[in-house]
Amino acid sequence: MTQAPPAEMRLHAIGAVRSPVREPVDLDWGGVESRIVLRPEYRAGLRGLGEFSHVLVVAWLHGAAFDPGRHLVRRPRGLAEMPELGIFAQRAKDRPNPLGVSVVRLLSVEPDGLRVQGLDAIDGTPVLDLKPHFPAFESPPGASVPGWVARLMSGYF
Amino acid sequence: MTQAPPAEMRLHAIGAVRSPVREPVDLDWGGVESRIVLRPEYRAGLRGLGEFSHVLVVAWLHGAAFDPGRHLVRRPRGLAEMPELGIFAQRAKDRPNPLGVSVVRLLSVEPDGLRVQGLDAIDGTPVLDLKPHFPAFESPPGASVPGWVARLMSGYF
Repeated sequence: MTQAPPAEMRLHAIGAVRSPVREPVDLDWGGVESRIVLRPEYRAGLRGLGEFSHVLVVAWLHGAAFDPGRHLVRRPRGLAEMPELGIFAQRAKDRPNPLGVSVVRLLSVEPDGLRVQGLDAIDGTPVLDLKPHFPAFESPPGASVPGWVARLMSGYF
Repeated sequence: MTQAPPAEMRLHAIGAVRSPVREPVDLDWGGVESRIVLRPEYRAGLRGLGEFSHVLVVAWLHGAAFDPGRHLVRRPRGLAEMPELGIFAQRAKDRPNPLGVSVVRLLSVEPDGLRVQGLDAIDGTPVLDLKPHFPAFESPPGASVPGWVARLMSGYF
């Protein structure tokens, strides 16, 4: 690489998720309504977000722990019918950096944060960033996935 | 929040971008071919990724610096014709946590990493995570954006 990476990359929470879901599950996130409460010093940063239908949430998956021997290559959810896959071919939470990315429906912008629908993050999850969802960035036309994805994701949302 | 956030959230690069683009620009990323070179200990994690057409890249925007007075609310790129917007209604790089998220076309998986097309990250950018692009996560049908987005993004890709 042409430039040394920064010596330290440290994050701080801009807010947290408040969700009725308190334990990690792999089912039925689609209808979940949750809130993202921002720290007071960041709330001005929401201006204009309400004009978007969807928001991209970057979260710190605080319940995750990456063990290379167990998680670098595995079958999704440990299911025998799934292929053996590297962690970068999976959306599993136990990753080298426990960063979650979800695009969710924005229900409303409130003085202290957001209400969203379909966010697959448990109550208390630290939030690192919010971005407006631009289809040009995240929704390439004609994207294709292998057949195991539909089987795995059945019932997730 | 029901649970205290972790005392420290520290990241480490899993690899880095090698791109012909060496300075930040806001134009013509769509045709850029670049490589993501992974550290040797993470390369096994690529198994199975080649079956996806697109990959989501989480990067550390190492050239960014967030100054609340300048960046919490501003006009995109400082353009007078843009509305004043909070940072969470923008994709600008100078954010509270300098995390970039891009979904890009996967050209090939190679022994030491990936070749991708359209990644808007300059040479040397630290890479934090790779995820397979699942349309169910990132491509909600019927997403809408305000009118300024099309004007701002003209020519970006």
